[in-house]
Amino acid sequence: MTSTPCYALSDWGTSRFRLWIVDNEGRVLAEKRSDDGLDTSRSRGFALTLEGHLAGLGAPAGLPVIICGMAGSRQGWIEANYVPVPADLSAILSGAVKIQGIDRDVRIIPGLAQSGTSPNVMRGEETQLLGAILDRNLSNGIIAMPGTHSKWVELEHGRAKSFSTYLTGELYALLASQSILRHSIGDAAASASPDHPQFTAALELMLSGERMLGELFGIRAAMLLDNLQPEGAASRLSGLLIGAEVAAAKVKLSGKVTLVASDAMAALYGKALRVAGLEFDLVDADEAVRKGLFVAACGIWPARGPSA
Amino acid sequence: MTSTPCYALSDWGTSRFRLWIVDNEGRVLAEKRSDDGLDTSRSRGFALTLEGHLAGLGAPAGLPVIICGMAGSRQGWIEANYVPVPADLSAILSGAVKIQGIDRDVRIIPGLAQSGTSPNVMRGEETQLLGAILDRNLSNGIIAMPGTHSKWVELEHGRAKSFSTYLTGELYALLASQSILRHSIGDAAASASPDHPQFTAALELMLSGERMLGELFGIRAAMLLDNLQPEGAASRLSGLLIGAEVAAAKVKLSGKVTLVASDAMAALYGKALRVAGLEFDLVDADEAVRKGLFVAACGIWPARGPSA
Repeated sequence: MTSTPCYALSDWGTSRFRLWIVDNEGRVLAEKRSDDGLDTSRSRGFALTLEGHLAGLGAPAGLPVIICGMAGSRQGWIEANYVPVPADLSAILSGAVKIQGIDRDVRIIPGLAQSGTSPNVMRGEETQLLGAILDRNLSNGIIAMPGTHSKWVELEHGRAKSFSTYLTGELYALLASQSILRHSIGDAAASASPDHPQFTAALELMLSGERMLGELFGIRAAMLLDNLQPEGAASRLSGLLIGAEVAAAKVKLSGKVTLVASDAMAALYGKALRVAGLEFDLVDADEAVRKGLFVAACGIWPARGPSA
Repeated sequence: MTSTPCYALSDWGTSRFRLWIVDNEGRVLAEKRSDDGLDTSRSRGFALTLEGHLAGLGAPAGLPVIICGMAGSRQGWIEANYVPVPADLSAILSGAVKIQGIDRDVRIIPGLAQSGTSPNVMRGEETQLLGAILDRNLSNGIIAMPGTHSKWVELEHGRAKSFSTYLTGELYALLASQSILRHSIGDAAASASPDHPQFTAALELMLSGERMLGELFGIRAAMLLDNLQPEGAASRLSGLLIGAEVAAAKVKLSGKVTLVASDAMAALYGKALRVAGLEFDLVDADEAVRKGLFVAACGIWPARGPSA
């Protein structure tokens, strides 16, 4: 490292672990990605897992660590309670929980919860949200964060007013690998393409108000009757699910959309938003979560931050 | 057996096998249910599996056998081609395929296929359909056959005009046992109840036009925030999926509905149709498939049938 390590930032989820060491401007000095999600980390010990990765990146002993994600759930390291919406995002920062009984200063960021007739929770995405809002200086509009459990947040006067969750990514994985559609998709689950005509046709069908549940089996039938190929089948399934998500969100929400996504997800959702006629800005998901973690760290340990 | 065996009837699906021996009026003389679906039967041999069950029921050597279901698919015993819709149901009977190279006369009933912009196939349900139509002397209307892959058929002038498939049952099983919702439902997947307020509320939500994809995660959130219990979670998931199916079918189809279902499915779908304001008659699914098989057998081997 040529610059001085200031904070360690971690996005610690159910199935993956990411760690960055940054300087006092948030520049990445070192980075680690691993499969040490909750299950493996719980059996080995969270502190031991974290220290192992920190040591691998040459982190100094006193370096403080800020964590977001499912590590803060009941099944994680320590439960960081949910902050209720409508929420000032500063409440996310002040709600961070300090891990007791270890030498290092480690804090876990709380999630957001929505009570009432549409109960909802998020954990990890609140930090992405914070990063996206600060990156684009947003105070109103919609923030879409696609993924296993896609989150759509309504922002009003700089506060997270309400949010919805779509099971899109999880449903895609289950249907492609475990349902009758696995015979049509095979190993092509990762080959869904925004440029495939099946993706576009499926998007348009869902945006016209059709229900996804009655269209899924058509992928199987099209393979049997019309020789639909695996990449086409994957693209159609992706179009049906993402189309259903965007169609539902479009009805519920209005305002400029900020899409927080990377790589293939950015391409698929970008196409879906365009076909839906929704204007949007793109923020890289990795950068957003890192920025959110960095801002949280600066708030918790200001003496080490940009002004230091 | 007190009466003379006339035919053996079999519904042979992907995961289960059912066999009835009936007399010349279609009365059941003996019955067998087993888990000998396609996979186990393929490795042991279809003929051997069938003969084993026939022997177990004391069937005579010359008894002819009629079969419907996935045993007639490419992954089954022999492929019985699809009959295209619009289809006279007599075409189902005349399309039955004879198994070659065995001593017994065994025939497999073909499925139905729908080409064009809404490709679709069914295999097994065409026999249930035939039974329901004959049982109620139907020539027009809607026949709903809920299940792993629910089928809704539009009947016009006694012909199967078109049909849709909803992945409701398969999606329920996947979500209840493999998704994040498994933590909320646990062992209660079979406990969805038509009388649970969560079932009714979910039905009403779906019938109001809401999208199911954005409501699934709410079951998880309601467990975390409102202590939703497993039976309530199962009932809610069932209501969301069945509600989405009925809402979609209601938009596409009109006419009197004949619901072909048994036991728990009959109760859940019956409630859903009532909440949707759809009039319906109930036909027992087991009786319908047996009646369809019997009528097919009488058409193929008339000399043994009712007039014999």
